[in-house]
Amino acid sequence: MAARLSDGERTQLLAPLLADGGWALVTGRDAIKKSFVFGDFGCAFAFMTAVALRAEAMNHHPEWFNVYNRVDITLSTHDCGGLSTRDTALAAHIDQAAARLL
Amino acid sequence: MAARLSDGERTQLLAPLLADGGWALVTGRDAIKKSFVFGDFGCAFAFMTAVALRAEAMNHHPEWFNVYNRVDITLSTHDCGGLSTRDTALAAHIDQAAARLL
Repeated sequence: MAARLSDGERTQLLAPLLADGGWALVTGRDAIKKSFVFGDFGCAFAFMTAVALRAEAMNHHPEWFNVYNRVDITLSTHDCGGLSTRDTALAAHIDQAAARLL
Repeated sequence: MAARLSDGERTQLLAPLLADGGWALVTGRDAIKKSFVFGDFGCAFAFMTAVALRAEAMNHHPEWFNVYNRVDITLSTHDCGGLSTRDTALAAHIDQAAARLL
């Protein structure tokens, strides 16, 4: 079972994603979100495929919306009803996958 | 340029999708939507990949949301600001792709 991020983990793991990483807290939910815009649909879906493979390996899946070259991602952990270290870890992988395609 | 569906095309191409195909009109927009639920994320993403390949070949892309095993799809044609034969054609391909995985 995943546990909600502790205060220390929020400072150490979450704060950098919010400060420099372009992630934002979701209003009314313990979740984070980020939008990515790629050159075209092919790049956007290549990104989604890279994220999907990692998410499946982690058994931790995003909530995401895509239209053409835009991908909006929300991360939260169903098991604990909020943010866990799974989300901060997946966010880091997502940013790495995007960096290869942007 | 795509053209909006004519009245005849709405009867011939759109009505069957709405009557038997599980598609529904979107409120306040000339668009259609349908939700698909698969066995797990792997099946849902296999479906999305099949749809993505077809969408890219057609140069006509869905608006879609995925969380775990669920995929919500909205179809409309940006060029004409509403439903065109591209949407009814893509809807048929989407249903075929889903049938292979459900």
